[in-house]
Amino acid sequence: MANLGFIGLGVMGSRMVKRLLAAGHTVRGYNRTRSKAVGLLDLGMRWGDTPAAVAQTADVVFSMVANTAALEAVTGGAQGVLAGLRAGMIFVDMSTVSPTASRTIAAQVAATGAHMLDAPVSGSVSTLEEGRLSFMVGGERAAYERVLPILQDIGPKVTYVGENGLAAAMKVATNLSLAVQMLAFSEGVLLAEKSGIARETAVEVLLNSVIASPMVKYRGPFVLGLPKEALFDVNMMQKDLLLALEMGRQLDVPLPTTAVTNELLTAARGMGLADKDFAVVFEVLAQLCGLKR
Amino acid sequence: MANLGFIGLGVMGSRMVKRLLAAGHTVRGYNRTRSKAVGLLDLGMRWGDTPAAVAQTADVVFSMVANTAALEAVTGGAQGVLAGLRAGMIFVDMSTVSPTASRTIAAQVAATGAHMLDAPVSGSVSTLEEGRLSFMVGGERAAYERVLPILQDIGPKVTYVGENGLAAAMKVATNLSLAVQMLAFSEGVLLAEKSGIARETAVEVLLNSVIASPMVKYRGPFVLGLPKEALFDVNMMQKDLLLALEMGRQLDVPLPTTAVTNELLTAARGMGLADKDFAVVFEVLAQLCGLKR
Amino acid sequence: MANLGFIGLGVMGSRMVKRLLAAGHTVRGYNRTRSKAVGLLDLGMRWGDTPAAVAQTADVVFSMVANTAALEAVTGGAQGVLAGLRAGMIFVDMSTVSPTASRTIAAQVAATGAHMLDAPVSGSVSTLEEGRLSFMVGGERAAYERVLPILQDIGPKVTYVGENGLAAAMKVATNLSLAVQMLAFSEGVLLAEKSGIARETAVEVLLNSVIASPMVKYRGPFVLGLPKEALFDVNMMQKDLLLALEMGRQLDVPLPTTAVTNELLTAARGMGLADKDFAVVFEVLAQLCGLKR
Amino acid sequence: MANLGFIGLGVMGSRMVKRLLAAGHTVRGYNRTRSKAVGLLDLGMRWGDTPAAVAQTADVVFSMVANTAALEAVTGGAQGVLAGLRAGMIFVDMSTVSPTASRTIAAQVAATGAHMLDAPVSGSVSTLEEGRLSFMVGGERAAYERVLPILQDIGPKVTYVGENGLAAAMKVATNLSLAVQMLAFSEGVLLAEKSGIARETAVEVLLNSVIASPMVKYRGPFVLGLPKEALFDVNMMQKDLLLALEMGRQLDVPLPTTAVTNELLTAARGMGLADKDFAVVFEVLAQLCGLKR
Repeated sequence: MANLGFIGLGVMGSRMVKRLLAAGHTVRGYNRTRSKAVGLLDLGMRWGDTPAAVAQTADVVFSMVANTAALEAVTGGAQGVLAGLRAGMIFVDMSTVSPTASRTIAAQVAATGAHMLDAPVSGSVSTLEEGRLSFMVGGERAAYERVLPILQDIGPKVTYVGENGLAAAMKVATNLSLAVQMLAFSEGVLLAEKSGIARETAVEVLLNSVIASPMVKYRGPFVLGLPKEALFDVNMMQKDLLLALEMGRQLDVPLPTTAVTNELLTAARGMGLADKDFAVVFEVLAQLCGLKR
Repeated sequence: MANLGFIGLGVMGSRMVKRLLAAGHTVRGYNRTRSKAVGLLDLGMRWGDTPAAVAQTADVVFSMVANTAALEAVTGGAQGVLAGLRAGMIFVDMSTVSPTASRTIAAQVAATGAHMLDAPVSGSVSTLEEGRLSFMVGGERAAYERVLPILQDIGPKVTYVGENGLAAAMKVATNLSLAVQMLAFSEGVLLAEKSGIARETAVEVLLNSVIASPMVKYRGPFVLGLPKEALFDVNMMQKDLLLALEMGRQLDVPLPTTAVTNELLTAARGMGLADKDFAVVFEVLAQLCGLKR
Repeated sequence: MANLGFIGLGVMGSRMVKRLLAAGHTVRGYNRTRSKAVGLLDLGMRWGDTPAAVAQTADVVFSMVANTAALEAVTGGAQGVLAGLRAGMIFVDMSTVSPTASRTIAAQVAATGAHMLDAPVSGSVSTLEEGRLSFMVGGERAAYERVLPILQDIGPKVTYVGENGLAAAMKVATNLSLAVQMLAFSEGVLLAEKSGIARETAVEVLLNSVIASPMVKYRGPFVLGLPKEALFDVNMMQKDLLLALEMGRQLDVPLPTTAVTNELLTAARGMGLADKDFAVVFEVLAQLCGLKR
Repeated sequence: MANLGFIGLGVMGSRMVKRLLAAGHTVRGYNRTRSKAVGLLDLGMRWGDTPAAVAQTADVVFSMVANTAALEAVTGGAQGVLAGLRAGMIFVDMSTVSPTASRTIAAQVAATGAHMLDAPVSGSVSTLEEGRLSFMVGGERAAYERVLPILQDIGPKVTYVGENGLAAAMKVATNLSLAVQMLAFSEGVLLAEKSGIARETAVEVLLNSVIASPMVKYRGPFVLGLPKEALFDVNMMQKDLLLALEMGRQLDVPLPTTAVTNELLTAARGMGLADKDFAVVFEVLAQLCGLKR
């Protein structure tokens, strides 16, 4: 069993630590707000006062934070992960961040003699709890092979995609479909509804059809009522679409459905819905159909 | 066990008849080209020389044909299904056709004293063979309840959506997502590929991710090589998108991702790819990226 | 000077007749509602009780009606234009109609020994009054050359585009830009406005810029206040866009900006704005920005 | 007559200086490559070795450079414009740059006691030569009024839009229509062409129609043959569209036609056409129609 560090104990991170503890690993964790760690400490997790402190006592350090800025905050500075790394260690970032930023930090990690892997995930909280989360991993293959068994303790499907930053890129390439699928789903529901089919029935049929991806199965029912707390809101989704569109321009890849969907997310912001789950694109479209909220 | 008729013994229809025979039903079938029926006759299916002849000896008649024109061809005229219907019978059309046309034929069926149900399916040949096909059904509820057990012999998920024509509408509302999901998937693959990830790897990751609908799992690998024979080609897919766009205009439902995707299918036609599986939108986009075919 | 007939004395038609009378031509006119003809009768126009009657006494007959259905109504039947045509006459339709319908009527006209020209116009009421209306003409070149001087009495720019139906096609190809330019203009105004520039100022600058087509100059100020009566409403504009999209599909021409703009017009309908000038797309977009009407 | 400085003697800048000299002003000019100034020196322009040197001897300094980076290069550093400014002077930047960057430099200018105006133009070389260039101006109104007569010596239409940076924003809001109008124009030409109308004829009709903005009149004929040297290429146009899309996201303004057009420009880059005039979107679309280049 391995000696692990874990930075970021939010909705996703805390559940990952639970699975790692359950698999028998030793885990020292850090979170900006310590109060979120209480439950995990009861389960045997140790506490580290800073990201650097967590890194100093571990062989492999994981991070799972909100965005590029948060990753830069926990890695840099005197108390950051970088300050605690030693030669031969592995730092695995599972956050969804800009491929460019990920590559930059990977170079800084390499300068300490340690190795970085970008290992973003595909799946929601429920996928994670059911042990069906999937990973894509970028970085040195040898480092990948060392952490593979540990990643599999969190989720079974792990795919090595290539050098540093490529998994971050792959995540962005995956996430654009989340938003587009949700908007196309909304188009279908509204077409059915205005034809005379009850919205509930339309959703039921679509969830039984060949277009029902795990994302559609999870988020489709949100058109009947949005969750109070958004785990992935318009702002977060649009951040990913903007990363995709930026990459598309750099790499000369036209992204027609992504571009159109992004404008509808902008409309959601214009309508004051930026902090709702991104399934709220349904309501933007419904309003354009003349259906009042 | 019921006394059934079946019009249209193509790729889908023949496999449905197999399941109905296996469930113990008596089936009399008709197909424009009789040669396609040979295997089914060996399995015990009886032959009808015309759609009318098939209807005359059955209590419930099914049809599974290519499009609205084909449905009109097998229902109308002296030898059509309508000519063979009797009061109390049920005619179940499982084809994907225009909701308006379906409603018109339902009225003609009602004039004979029989009942019509529109019962289009969601799923491919493989879904059907695995017994996981799903149905949406429109028409009188009483008629629906009478045929429900028979439909379940073909596939387990059957949803009643409302009056005549609504299942046809629901099918169109479902199918728009097929094309949009495929285009968004293609955007993701090309973004990954131009980032430096092998196309095979990108496909593998996406097929393991939360965007992997049954459609994406089936058709995603086509970006590595199109099937020689298209079961659902650009022309067929675009027919469905045009039905969706037409409904959108009549019902005042904007369909942004559908409209954009439809233009890419038009481009596929412009590039001479109309008879390829609609997954060929990947190649249209690839060419716009400067990747040669 | 020629002996002319004129069917359709609406906003555009009546002003055309005025110019023809002023040029010294003899004109017999017909309109569904006779009351609209009073002013023209005062100017010397004669009255015809039916389209057929108008045709019988003329050498060249013009029509300027609302749409394809109206054209079919005034040409067909015992009292229609076709019933009054004689060999060698010319029938010039200036309405915006489906190219296919125009070709069908041209064939019927040819069967009488007369010739038809499709001669749709580009320009608004004010362009017409200023004598700057432009024409595109389809049909036999010899017939075109005979009516050319008469058309120039209405407007100076006349372009021969080819055989029957091609001018109708050219008109559709022109009109798609009306809607797209108006939507792009609206995007610019809202971007400026939300940056902090007064809407009036933004409009002024854009009207002085290189994007100020005659259409933009005429319709741009509508974003400051829609006219009470729409001369070209959402329904009429969308009719033209649908003709364009239909042609695009038949001819394999992808129309990305047209398709997207059409969905915004659909949204205008969904929001109950179908009978407003199509410049109302500005308000649809403004609402998506969170600007209340 | 005023004592002027002018930074940037390229295609536009040199012609502006000519007009200023012709109006009787004293002008000292600077350009990165001095050779481009020869003709202007013959006309009486004086030379400044650095932007700072130009500023030191002038009351009003103009700049007309390629982009944000070039503006930062000529304003900053020991030899930049800022180093040469004195209290009461006015610095007028006529380049198309990011509104944010323009505001930042305006603050630096204000710190020297001078005033900055952002005064981007609308119009091409030929508009400029015909004396019909138009300006939008942002900054202090008093400074605006002082330079107004000088700007009018270059072009007659000058509109004050508000505080610093707003004219830069207005320019971006204007330019998005350039690209969208060009793409919609291309859609129309191709629709006409595939209907059977000669491309030349289609262009002629459109140039006579109400959609013929000055931009369409200038650039429309490019679909018959691109100019050898692009004055405004795909890269430059896309830079402006990206500024627009970025502003749209910050200000919550959905830009549907801009977003779609931008993807077609990305396709142009993918096809290796980045350095062609942006009218090359026509060729991208033509290829999607199956028309070979």
